[in-house]
Amino acid sequence: MNNLTFDTGRAYAAYRDTQDELSAFRSEFVIDDPDLIYLDGNSLGRLPAATIGYLQTTIREEWGSGLVRSWNQGWSEAPRRVGKMVSSLIGAAPDEVVVCDSTTTNLYKLSLAALSLQQGRRELLSDVLNFPTDLYILQGVQHLLGGQHILRLLPSQDGIVIPTQHVLDAITQNTALVSLSYPTFKSGYLYDIETITRHAHQVGALVLWDFCHGVGVVPIELERWGVDFAVGCTYKYLNGGPGSPAFLYVRRDLQNRVIQPLTGWWGHQAPFAFDLDYKPAQGINRFLVGSPPILSLVAIEPSLEMTQRAGITRIRQKSIQLTSYLVDLFDAYLAPLGFTLGSPRQPQQRGSHVSVSHPESYRITRALIEEMKVVPDFRQPDTLRLGLAPLYTTFCETWDAVQRIRQVVVEERYKKYSEERLPVT
Amino acid sequence: MNNLTFDTGRAYAAYRDTQDELSAFRSEFVIDDPDLIYLDGNSLGRLPAATIGYLQTTIREEWGSGLVRSWNQGWSEAPRRVGKMVSSLIGAAPDEVVVCDSTTTNLYKLSLAALSLQQGRRELLSDVLNFPTDLYILQGVQHLLGGQHILRLLPSQDGIVIPTQHVLDAITQNTALVSLSYPTFKSGYLYDIETITRHAHQVGALVLWDFCHGVGVVPIELERWGVDFAVGCTYKYLNGGPGSPAFLYVRRDLQNRVIQPLTGWWGHQAPFAFDLDYKPAQGINRFLVGSPPILSLVAIEPSLEMTQRAGITRIRQKSIQLTSYLVDLFDAYLAPLGFTLGSPRQPQQRGSHVSVSHPESYRITRALIEEMKVVPDFRQPDTLRLGLAPLYTTFCETWDAVQRIRQVVVEERYKKYSEERLPVT
Repeated sequence: MNNLTFDTGRAYAAYRDTQDELSAFRSEFVIDDPDLIYLDGNSLGRLPAATIGYLQTTIREEWGSGLVRSWNQGWSEAPRRVGKMVSSLIGAAPDEVVVCDSTTTNLYKLSLAALSLQQGRRELLSDVLNFPTDLYILQGVQHLLGGQHILRLLPSQDGIVIPTQHVLDAITQNTALVSLSYPTFKSGYLYDIETITRHAHQVGALVLWDFCHGVGVVPIELERWGVDFAVGCTYKYLNGGPGSPAFLYVRRDLQNRVIQPLTGWWGHQAPFAFDLDYKPAQGINRFLVGSPPILSLVAIEPSLEMTQRAGITRIRQKSIQLTSYLVDLFDAYLAPLGFTLGSPRQPQQRGSHVSVSHPESYRITRALIEEMKVVPDFRQPDTLRLGLAPLYTTFCETWDAVQRIRQVVVEERYKKYSEERLPVT
Repeated sequence: MNNLTFDTGRAYAAYRDTQDELSAFRSEFVIDDPDLIYLDGNSLGRLPAATIGYLQTTIREEWGSGLVRSWNQGWSEAPRRVGKMVSSLIGAAPDEVVVCDSTTTNLYKLSLAALSLQQGRRELLSDVLNFPTDLYILQGVQHLLGGQHILRLLPSQDGIVIPTQHVLDAITQNTALVSLSYPTFKSGYLYDIETITRHAHQVGALVLWDFCHGVGVVPIELERWGVDFAVGCTYKYLNGGPGSPAFLYVRRDLQNRVIQPLTGWWGHQAPFAFDLDYKPAQGINRFLVGSPPILSLVAIEPSLEMTQRAGITRIRQKSIQLTSYLVDLFDAYLAPLGFTLGSPRQPQQRGSHVSVSHPESYRITRALIEEMKVVPDFRQPDTLRLGLAPLYTTFCETWDAVQRIRQVVVEERYKKYSEERLPVT
C-alpha cells in the first residue's frame, strides 16, 4: 500500500489516523457511542470530559457554597478572563476581547459602534453568503438610523465563493462598514481577509468580521490584519456548550472612541458606584452590558485550554487534511450519485466543513440521523454540511460517513422520510 | 410565653419558625454551613438541590449524548418554556413571556419597542431610586434617538420612597414611557403599581416595569394591572443561578405592533429558512435575538417548579412576616446603635429585603462577611441590605443576624477593616 497517495479504501483512512498528531485529543471528549459519526461540530461542538467536573465545581462549590461571594472570586472577571483565552487564538491582545452576550447582540453593538465613527458615509457592505442574523442586524440598524444607509449585498455566482476582487471593487468612499463572515456559514469559503481589511482602511471604511465558523479551527491574526471589530461563537469549534456566550473584539485604539449603544451597568466605568449617570468604561469593558450567564460562560474554559494545548497551527493542518480527504472521497463516491460540491476545492479558501448539495439533501439528512448514525446538518435549500472537527473527527469516521451517505442514496433509504422540513440546527 | 406578641428573645424566633408553613422548603436547598446566615438572596439566590441533577442531565445527556439533536428535543423551546413558567408567577399569559438575554438587554429592547409606538411624545419618566442600569439604558436610548427625548428623574426626599401621587402628577401628554422598578433595589419600596399604570394609560403613556427585586416574592398581576412591558431577573428570588437570563413580558396586543431593535435570527418569523431579509416573528418570539445560553437558562427550571409549589401567596405572607419581624428587631437592637431604617415601615409598601443605614455600613458589611458568618450586601453610600428569602430564610436566622450585626458594632469589630471599597455584588 502506498501510504502517501490517496486511495479510496478504508485502510488508507486507518493509516491516516495513525499519522494524526492530534489523535489523542479525541479521548478528552465524551463519546458515548463510538459508532455515531458526529459531523456537526460546526454547529455544536462535543462535550469535553473536563467540562463536566469544571461545571460541577462552579455549580456545587462556587454557587452552592460560595454564593454571592463568588462574584468577587472570579465570576466578575470571567468575561475578561475567557476573553483573554480567546484572544490567544485570534491574534489579539488580552485587553481587546471579552466574552459576553450572543453573537447577534455583539454584532449589533459593534455595528452601531462602528457607525458612530462614520457619520458621513452611507453604505453598509455585506454579501449573500453571510449568515442571516448578520444581515438582519444590519437591516435593523439601517431602520433604527432612519433609513439613511444603503445595505449592499454582493452576489455570488455559484453560491460558494465571491472573488475577493469583487469586494475590493465594491468598497467606495461612501462605504461605512464592511461586514462579512470568515468563513461563510454554508460554503465554508475564506476570503482574503487581509487584503480586504487593508483595502477597506485605505478607502476609509471599517470592517467587522464574523468568525463564528472559523474561531478555533482557522488561523486568525486580528492585530496583524488590522481588523477593527470582530465577533464569533464559542459553541462550535470551541466546544463551549449550547448557546455559550460569544466573543467580541475591538481594536484597542478604537475602544474609547466609539459609542456602544447597549449602555448597561457592566459597561459603566464604575458599576458599583451606582451613579445615576452613565459614564462609559474605558477599554474593552465598555462593550459589556449586563450580568453574564456564568454557567454558560465558564463552560467554555476547559475547551479553550484544550484548544490552546493542541495549537491552532496543528489544528489547521489536520483540518486541511480532513477536508481535502473528504473532497477526494466526494469525487470518488458522491459526485457519481448526483451530489455537487458546495465548498471551495482549494484548501486555503476553505474552513473546516465541506458542503455537498443534492436535490434530496433534506431527506438524506433525516435518514443519516435517524438510521445511519451520522449527524451532519442541513441548510436550505439543498445543502448537507459535513463538519470536520480536528480535535475529535477521525479519518475513518470521514470514510465511514461517506459510505453511509452513499448507502442512503443507493438504497434510496431517504424516500421513506417526509419532505416536511423540520428545523435542524 | 405569649406566642402572639413580638418579643425580643430568640425563643420567639424559634416559635415563629415552628409556625412557618414554608419551613420544609429550606431542606430543598444546598446549605453546607447551617451557621452561615445568607441574607443576599436578593442578589443571588441559593442553589436548589434539584438543580444539580437537572444540570447534570443537561450537560451529560443532552449535550454529551444528544449533541446538536437536543436543540430539537427541548432546547429551542426553552426560552418559551421557561417563560411560560415565569408567566404563572406574574399574572401573565404563557404567550406573553420569554426568558432570554440579560435584564439590561431586555430593558433596551422594550424601551425602544415602546418608543416605536410613541412618535410624538418626548419625555421618559423614571426616578432616582431606580436601578442604575435602567437609567443608563434610558440615557443610551435618548442619545441613540438623537437627543430629542428628555429623561426626567423623580426625586426622593428620604431616599426610601416617592409618593405615588408624585408619579401621577409627573405623567403628562408628553410622557412617552414610564420606566420604574417594583420594588426599588435599595429601599425595597413598592409603588402603587396599578394606579400608576392606569393613570399612565389614561394620559396615553406606556409603562415598563422592572421586577428584578420582586419576581418570586411579591404578587405581580400584569394582565390585571394592564402593564405594557416588563422585565425581571431570575437569579435573585427565583434562584436561577449566577447571571441566569432575564424574563421579558410584552402585553399580547402590543407584540405585533412594536419594532424590536435587536433584529436577530431567533426573532425572525422563520429562523431556519435562512432568508436574506429580516421578517419579524409574530407574537412573543419577536423579542428573541440570538442563541440562548442553555445551561444558564434551564438552570432556572427546578427553582421555578419549587416556587410554583410554594405559591406566591404563601411566599408573600412569609415575606411580610419576616420583614416585619426584622423591622421590630431593628427598633429593639439596631436603632439604639445609630442605624436608621432605609426601607418603608408599612409592609404593603415593602418587598422582601430591609435596608438599614449606618455611617460604617461598608466596614460593618466586611466584618459580617469575613468573621461573623453573615452575608448581606452593601450598597453605596451607606446601605446594608438584608434580604429575606421566604423559601429558606428562618426567623432564627433573622434574630441571629441582628445579634451579630449588633456585636460587630458594639465590639467595634468593623474598625480593623480598611475603608477601601471593593465591589460587593
